[in-house]
Amino acid sequence: MNIGFVGVGRMGANMARRLRDRGHHVTTLFDANRAAVTALAGEISAIACPTLGDVTAGADVIFTVVSDDSAMRSIFSGDDNLLVHARGKLFINCATVSPEVHLEAEQLAENVGANTLEACMASSITQAREGSLYLMCGGREEVFRRAEPLLKELSSSLRFIGRSGEAAKVKALVNMVMNINTAGLAEGLGLGHALGLDLTMLREVFSQTGAASRVLQTDGEDMQNRDHATFFSAAHAAKDSGIALAVGEAAGLDLPLARATKEQYERMIAEGLGELDKSGIAELTFKDRRSKSA
Amino acid sequence: MNIGFVGVGRMGANMARRLRDRGHHVTTLFDANRAAVTALAGEISAIACPTLGDVTAGADVIFTVVSDDSAMRSIFSGDDNLLVHARGKLFINCATVSPEVHLEAEQLAENVGANTLEACMASSITQAREGSLYLMCGGREEVFRRAEPLLKELSSSLRFIGRSGEAAKVKALVNMVMNINTAGLAEGLGLGHALGLDLTMLREVFSQTGAASRVLQTDGEDMQNRDHATFFSAAHAAKDSGIALAVGEAAGLDLPLARATKEQYERMIAEGLGELDKSGIAELTFKDRRSKSA
Repeated sequence: MNIGFVGVGRMGANMARRLRDRGHHVTTLFDANRAAVTALAGEISAIACPTLGDVTAGADVIFTVVSDDSAMRSIFSGDDNLLVHARGKLFINCATVSPEVHLEAEQLAENVGANTLEACMASSITQAREGSLYLMCGGREEVFRRAEPLLKELSSSLRFIGRSGEAAKVKALVNMVMNINTAGLAEGLGLGHALGLDLTMLREVFSQTGAASRVLQTDGEDMQNRDHATFFSAAHAAKDSGIALAVGEAAGLDLPLARATKEQYERMIAEGLGELDKSGIAELTFKDRRSKSA
Repeated sequence: MNIGFVGVGRMGANMARRLRDRGHHVTTLFDANRAAVTALAGEISAIACPTLGDVTAGADVIFTVVSDDSAMRSIFSGDDNLLVHARGKLFINCATVSPEVHLEAEQLAENVGANTLEACMASSITQAREGSLYLMCGGREEVFRRAEPLLKELSSSLRFIGRSGEAAKVKALVNMVMNINTAGLAEGLGLGHALGLDLTMLREVFSQTGAASRVLQTDGEDMQNRDHATFFSAAHAAKDSGIALAVGEAAGLDLPLARATKEQYERMIAEGLGELDKSGIAELTFKDRRSKSA
């Protein structure tokens, strides 16, 4: 079995490295960033393909790890797309995109005799490299069962959620709640700082009380120390919260916390902080940290 | 050493029961709710005092567990107050009130030769009964050291934070972040429900990902099952978020998540849901659960 990758940013590249380490044949790669794809091709002895069609031609299973809805639509239906001579191929789509985009991709693929699976990742770069991703899959269950051994190489937790698009919904909800908790934590620590409290003490108290959360563990110290090296960018957080909000509005729900959170992440983008890690949201709340306004 | 209690709601009553179980002399009680104080007095063989002055007269250490700033001010400076013949007495103030109210009480007490300690509780009724409260104390350190053996009878975690009012600040921040996480969780589960997802699966995914939080453990299942028996009421949540917001505004901070959360809890009060547990905030987000508006 030959494996292709479309999108070799830090997530995609680490997944490709992991599969190669485990003895799989990663053969064809594509990325609009030619420098990135050429470097990775050299590193893992794969081919940096000039077109998407070449990726499909050289692989049986193609992982797609692109940035957003528009990129996903483009690789499945653009002038150059993955579905040329695609009969029998399997596309495993790992990007965080809207649920309906997974359904569209599945339909387009099935029209030409191919299959898709959505594999939403609720983890980050390190887990991709180590094969310890948290993967939530959507699609036809028999397709999932076929891909399961390969997906296990990448994941420490693998879960079949339901039909195409369902995993994207769960992922959108995970990120919506995570982003709310992150924005709330930033307010708590920012206010603690303004009150002159010892933030190391405050984080410890948070961790022992009703204020405890996963993002306190992953982002609390970074917020205190202004260490915003990017694992999950603010721009991504804004996008993901936007997906959840759009789904919520379509369902007729009012989600004031999700909305306030999205507005905060959009403020980061507007102030030129969008490429900081999501922990950088603390820069908005801590006094005297603001880049622009007072 | 004789011990008095002012405020024998569920928290105060359980603290009094616990101290009595541990062999302490709980002698004098006061509560505006005469039925409650009379019942507890009978249960633990204490005196239901007609005035606050009687509580002080009959005790060396007086715990106050009242509802809000105005009640705290009243018991220390109203026409009938605790500071009559109070020289040498110690008042341990456990209510969640504004930081400045702790400072006022300390000053008033010291004017008559008494001491105060703030002992903020980040736990609930069950922990009060079991002596496993999470207690954060503020005041003079020598006063804290003197009260420490008694406070250990009530707590599994006891921490000296700093001068009077500092523990209230930390408590306000804990509850502010907890309330944000609770409101955010309600939106996540409410949206999951609207999308037809299995909420037991969704809560499990949340618990394994960046959406994990203490309130997911304590309130997630209750939100799903509409079990809103009150441990920490929505009205209390609104009050505590209000304390944090007021402190934040005084510090010149913009706290959009805290504000949105307070508005949600105030909506609960406006819709007659204020006496539900804080988990009842899910009633606002889940479709078809709303008591009044659409």
